[in-house]
Amino acid sequence: MPTLLLDKEKCLRNIEKIARKAGEKGLDLRPHCKTHQSAEVAGWTRDFGVSALTVSSFPMAHYFARAGWKDILVAFPFQPGEMENLIGISGMCDLSILVDSPAALPFLNHIPHLVGVYVDVDAGYGRTGIRTENPELMEQIIVKIRGNPHLEFRGFYCHAGDSYKAGDRGEADRIHQKALGDLGGLKQLFGQYGPRILYGDTPSCSVQEEFGGIDELTPGNFFFYDLMQHALGSCSLEEIAVALECPVAGRYPADERIMIHGGGIHFSRESMLHGEKQVYGRLVSREEAAWTIPEEERFIDSLSQEHGIMLKCGKLAREVNIGDLLSFLPIHSCMTANLMGEYQLLDGKR
Amino acid sequence: MPTLLLDKEKCLRNIEKIARKAGEKGLDLRPHCKTHQSAEVAGWTRDFGVSALTVSSFPMAHYFARAGWKDILVAFPFQPGEMENLIGISGMCDLSILVDSPAALPFLNHIPHLVGVYVDVDAGYGRTGIRTENPELMEQIIVKIRGNPHLEFRGFYCHAGDSYKAGDRGEADRIHQKALGDLGGLKQLFGQYGPRILYGDTPSCSVQEEFGGIDELTPGNFFFYDLMQHALGSCSLEEIAVALECPVAGRYPADERIMIHGGGIHFSRESMLHGEKQVYGRLVSREEAAWTIPEEERFIDSLSQEHGIMLKCGKLAREVNIGDLLSFLPIHSCMTANLMGEYQLLDGKR
Repeated sequence: MPTLLLDKEKCLRNIEKIARKAGEKGLDLRPHCKTHQSAEVAGWTRDFGVSALTVSSFPMAHYFARAGWKDILVAFPFQPGEMENLIGISGMCDLSILVDSPAALPFLNHIPHLVGVYVDVDAGYGRTGIRTENPELMEQIIVKIRGNPHLEFRGFYCHAGDSYKAGDRGEADRIHQKALGDLGGLKQLFGQYGPRILYGDTPSCSVQEEFGGIDELTPGNFFFYDLMQHALGSCSLEEIAVALECPVAGRYPADERIMIHGGGIHFSRESMLHGEKQVYGRLVSREEAAWTIPEEERFIDSLSQEHGIMLKCGKLAREVNIGDLLSFLPIHSCMTANLMGEYQLLDGKR
Repeated sequence: MPTLLLDKEKCLRNIEKIARKAGEKGLDLRPHCKTHQSAEVAGWTRDFGVSALTVSSFPMAHYFARAGWKDILVAFPFQPGEMENLIGISGMCDLSILVDSPAALPFLNHIPHLVGVYVDVDAGYGRTGIRTENPELMEQIIVKIRGNPHLEFRGFYCHAGDSYKAGDRGEADRIHQKALGDLGGLKQLFGQYGPRILYGDTPSCSVQEEFGGIDELTPGNFFFYDLMQHALGSCSLEEIAVALECPVAGRYPADERIMIHGGGIHFSRESMLHGEKQVYGRLVSREEAAWTIPEEERFIDSLSQEHGIMLKCGKLAREVNIGDLLSFLPIHSCMTANLMGEYQLLDGKR
């Protein structure tokens, strides 16, 4: 079976880098845990002064609350199907939720514990949130929140996910500056309520240097990074902290093909363009327990449920034997980690 | 949270249709369980005379062996990392494995229980298996299998997965006829060993009528079908037996947009082309517990980890409320079922 390797040293360096940047800018760090979904990995951030987490679902909030975290934001718009979870978790920790519509508020009239609320802001991504051009709707929501004794309005949350689609650095800068400007405007406009501003996806937090007006950074993917983040310029290949180790299960030297046990239920079906072809993971060199990045670029060319196929492998297809282990950087570490559910540290600990 | 709905009646009809076809052609049915991965669903096939299963991994074989199945084929080339699993499972049931290289055989010299072996045949798909043009290599492997008292050569297995790439019915027919011809040739060539021929992906088993030379059919996706199979002509939309029920978590009437709680970790990142755009699931109409196929085609337009976005929803974006449940046919039911891990029958039973 494939094994998801986690290089703890790389991960700690990734945490340190973002924590240092946050510290230098006077920002709090509330890392998003949707990528790693691991109490152990989250625990590593405590040494860097982190005391609050972001998650993307109520079950994830429950998991981290049980692990002892006392300040958790569910950064996914609340819907009433989660009421039972909300009630349970808000009795375990200081829970904050996200709201982007007045329609979500009537459900929150009768809850037993105080819950913090952030208003979700859309600075141009177009996924969730209230568009910054619509402060009237925000005002309407804030008034309702403040009128409910079980809720506390805490500020604004913005995920500028369009940074993932930026074609170049200039475009990424424009998206970031637009978000900063919009959020700064909201901070001023609603200054009477003292809103905190939460912001910061991994590409922005990794490459940007100016965060005027922001109070807390909420990136998540930076723990591990991946090939997609590398393509966006967020990290070097050497900073990617996870690799999927897959046994060779087939070798076809005449066709220069290798088949590994590692498919869509391990890597996920996420792919990216390399030149003109879709690829699903990049081969690294194993050296004892660790891995290094080889100069020659080799990729997984296709995936089915359990199979991964490497084409045009040349002599590698003759050199490997069945049962040998090959390791690959994932395209999207959030998806791969979610599927694998477990890590193996380089010292063998799971 | 999203819920994977399973319409048992549709699933039973899908099983019955394939079982009836197999019976009419005098073939055994050894359904592949990688799609549903459920002992309960596999159990439904017993009423149709099924007594043997196909799976895609040793952990899956172990799960079905514990559930009482006595004849299980792991249709994924054996590699020595699975030795411990192989030994354990071969003590629980009549286990068969797949081999496509002499290099896999030395690992099998010292095993405690008899294990059946099928030789994996590549009739043109180019994923795993020995190409039918290379009977010398097959002979070499069969001789080695027969020389090992712990192994029993049972026949040939072929997954003609190129049927999934066929552009039209004519091409699908040619792929099927090529595989039948090749497998028939092997049956004759190695007739002295009395090989059984195992064959049959879901598209072929659903649309083809001639299976001369085949002994057992091994399709898997047909239990549930999905939008990809519908596009291949394997099923009607009404035959798709699973749908992912997702709460509405955001409504943006001014943008005609709806956001559902249902993302890449629920549907999988699998997409398909509809016209010129990639889509991730098709909306169905809920009527009491069941669902029907509406005339108007509405799709999920983008997915992130937890979010699904429907664009250009028109008045639907005004009509739905937060917390309403919308249900979607999946692109690829194998991936969606693997991620969800649990089904809810239409009577509410999980």
